[in-house]
Amino acid sequence: MKKTFVLAPDSFKESMTAKEVCIAMETGLKRVFPDANYIHVPMADGGEGTTQSLIDATGGEIFTQQVTGPLGTPVEACYGIMGSGDIAVIEMASASGIHYVNQQTKNPLLTTTWGTGELISACLDKGIKKIILGIGGSATNDGGAGMAEALGVRFYDRHGKRLAAGGGALGELHRIDISGLDSRLAQVDIQVACDVTNPLCGSQGASAVFGPQKGATPEMVTELDRNLAHYAAIISQQLGKEVAAAPGAGAAGGLGAGLMAFTRCTLRKGIEIVVEYSGLASHMAGADFCFTGEGRIDFQTRFGKTPFGVAQTAMQHHVPVIAVAGSIGDDIDSLYEAGIDAIFGIIPHAATIESLLPEGATNMERTCENIGRLIKKTAMASF
Amino acid sequence: MKKTFVLAPDSFKESMTAKEVCIAMETGLKRVFPDANYIHVPMADGGEGTTQSLIDATGGEIFTQQVTGPLGTPVEACYGIMGSGDIAVIEMASASGIHYVNQQTKNPLLTTTWGTGELISACLDKGIKKIILGIGGSATNDGGAGMAEALGVRFYDRHGKRLAAGGGALGELHRIDISGLDSRLAQVDIQVACDVTNPLCGSQGASAVFGPQKGATPEMVTELDRNLAHYAAIISQQLGKEVAAAPGAGAAGGLGAGLMAFTRCTLRKGIEIVVEYSGLASHMAGADFCFTGEGRIDFQTRFGKTPFGVAQTAMQHHVPVIAVAGSIGDDIDSLYEAGIDAIFGIIPHAATIESLLPEGATNMERTCENIGRLIKKTAMASF
Repeated sequence: MKKTFVLAPDSFKESMTAKEVCIAMETGLKRVFPDANYIHVPMADGGEGTTQSLIDATGGEIFTQQVTGPLGTPVEACYGIMGSGDIAVIEMASASGIHYVNQQTKNPLLTTTWGTGELISACLDKGIKKIILGIGGSATNDGGAGMAEALGVRFYDRHGKRLAAGGGALGELHRIDISGLDSRLAQVDIQVACDVTNPLCGSQGASAVFGPQKGATPEMVTELDRNLAHYAAIISQQLGKEVAAAPGAGAAGGLGAGLMAFTRCTLRKGIEIVVEYSGLASHMAGADFCFTGEGRIDFQTRFGKTPFGVAQTAMQHHVPVIAVAGSIGDDIDSLYEAGIDAIFGIIPHAATIESLLPEGATNMERTCENIGRLIKKTAMASF
Repeated sequence: MKKTFVLAPDSFKESMTAKEVCIAMETGLKRVFPDANYIHVPMADGGEGTTQSLIDATGGEIFTQQVTGPLGTPVEACYGIMGSGDIAVIEMASASGIHYVNQQTKNPLLTTTWGTGELISACLDKGIKKIILGIGGSATNDGGAGMAEALGVRFYDRHGKRLAAGGGALGELHRIDISGLDSRLAQVDIQVACDVTNPLCGSQGASAVFGPQKGATPEMVTELDRNLAHYAAIISQQLGKEVAAAPGAGAAGGLGAGLMAFTRCTLRKGIEIVVEYSGLASHMAGADFCFTGEGRIDFQTRFGKTPFGVAQTAMQHHVPVIAVAGSIGDDIDSLYEAGIDAIFGIIPHAATIESLLPEGATNMERTCENIGRLIKKTAMASF
C-alpha cells in the first residue's frame, strides 16, 4: 500500500522557510520511497514565520502595505490572506517589531503599535471576518493604544488634547473616545497567538518583564508601569472592561490589553491556532509517519513550539513523529514523553552557524534520506 | 526474542577509542532496548588505533617498550598481544612514526625503522608466532633496512664498513649479511596491513610519492629513489628476492620491500586483517543490527575504511548496517551500494571541532538512542 508522510516542520530561521523544509524533507524521503504520498503542512508557532507558513499551508496570498512603524516613520509591512479567502494572518512585528529600532532609537516611551492597527484596518477593507494575530517581537510598550488609534479610538488628556504616541504619554490619559472605532471590528474575531500569561502591570507586567529588552531604563520601567496601570484604570472606568490582571494583557508591551479593550479577541497558544488553521489534524488520519522540525530543538520545545504541537496532534491519530532539527540543545528527554518518537540533527561536520545556514536544504535532504533508509530497512528486516 | 546488536566502530580520532565508541553506542541503544545483547567488536583499518582495537576486541594486553626512534634517539613505543596469547599487533608508527619528527628534524635521508625491528624482536622474545603489522604513518625512507638491522642483518659498503642509518646511506650498499638474522623470524608469519600498492621505486615509488611529506626536497627524492633502486638490486643479486616492482614494496618508505626481503610476510588490506582477527564474522550470525562508524565518513570510506569492511562482512550475513559518524563528508551515496544501510552524524550544533571532540560520547549516546527509538517505533508500527 502507498505510504503517506505528513511533513509539518516549522521554518529554520535564516536558513529555510517551513515550505522549503517540507520540500527538502520530501526530496530526501523520495529517494527511498519514490511512490509515497507527501503532504506538506508548513507550520509555525505564532512567532516569526507564522504568516508565511499559514499562507503556504493553505495556498493563500501575501500582501505588503506601507504603515507607520514603531518610531512613527513609514515601514513596509505585510499580512496574509489564507486560501479560504476569509481569514487573515498578521504578525504585529511586521508593522511594529523590535527589528525596526536600534541601540540609538529604541525608546519604549515613544514607540507605537499604530502600524499594527493599520494592518488590521487593511484586513477590514478586504472584508475579512477572522484575523490570526501573532504578537511576538514588539518594539512597543504602549498598551496597544497606537493600534486602537489607527482604528479610530481617540485618547485625550485633561485639557482635551490628543495624547502623543507611545507608552510615555499614557500617564496623561483622561478620556477615551471610542465613538470613531471602526464599526466593522465588531464583526471580526481576532485569534491572538500569545504564549505568555503576563498581566499588564506589576513585577510580572509588560514594562518590568519585557521593557528592558526594548530599551527601558529602570526609571522608564517605573514610569511605563505606572502609565499602563493608569491606562487600565481609565479603560475600566470608561469602557467597563477589566484588563489589568487578565492573563496575556501584558504581552507585546500591553497590546494584549489593548486588544481586549477594543476588539473581539481570544488569546490562545500560537501553536494551537496554527494547528487548527493549517488543517494539520485532517491530514493525520491514515498517515504512516509525521516529520516535524525546527531550527533548534531543546527542552523549551515542550512549551508550545511547533514540534510539540505537531506531536500532540499526531499522538491523537497514533502517527509516529520524527523531529529533524538544525541544532539539538540540552534536556530533550522530555520531548520523547511529549510524543516525539525520535530526534535527529542535520549538521554533517564541525562548522560555524553562518556556513551551515546556506546548506540547510542539502543537510535536511541527506538526513531524511537516511531516516527513510533506516525505516525501510527495519520494516524489511521484520525486526 | 532477545535482539542482538553488533557494535563494530573504528576509533574516533582524538575523541574516543573504538572501545569507548562501543560503550557509548550501547549506552544509547540500551535506553531503548534494555534487554538486548550487545556485542562489542572495536575495529580499526590497519592504521592508527589498530593495536588498541584488536587488543580491546580480544581482551589482550598492551606492552610498552623503549626503542630507537626514527631520529636515533629513544622513544616509548608499544605493541599488543591479543587475547589468544600467540598473536602480536604492532603499529610501525609507534616506533618510527612521523609524529616523532618536526619541521626542523624531519629528514628522510637519516630516519630509520630500527625501532620497528626492535618491537618485532620483543615479540619474538615473547614466543609470538604471528604478527599483525600496521605500517602507516612512517617518518622513514630507509627501505626497512633499519628494521632488518635491529633483527640482525648487516649492511656493508665496499670498504666493509657498516652503513649509517637512513635512506641516504643505502647508495653505498655493497654487501648484505643475513647470517645474523634472528632465526626465530623464519617461524613467524607477519600479516602486513598495507592499503597502498606502490612499488619501491620510480614515479609511483616510496620516495616520489611519500618522500615529500617526510621532508624530502626534490633533490632528496631523486637521491632516495636511486638509493632504494640500488638497495633492491643488491637484494636481488645477493638474496635472490625481487622486491623492486612488488605491489606495496613502496609502503612506509620501502618498509614493505624490507619485510619482503627479510621476513615471511603477507601484505593485505588493513581492514581485511582486522575483520579476520577481531572475529567480526563469527559475531554476525544471528545479529539483528550492526552499528559501525568512524570519525569522518565520506566517499573514501569505500576504499578500505572500517565501515566499508564491516558492511561487507555484515552483508554476507544479511545483517543491516548503520554507520554513525563524527562528521559526514561528500559523496556518500556509493556507501549505500557498498552495504551501509543508513548513515547518521552525531554533531548537535554549530561548533568547532575542538569543542566537539570532548563531547563525542554524549553525542554518540544521544544519536544511537534516537536510531534505536526509530527502529523500535518502525517495528511496532508494522510499517
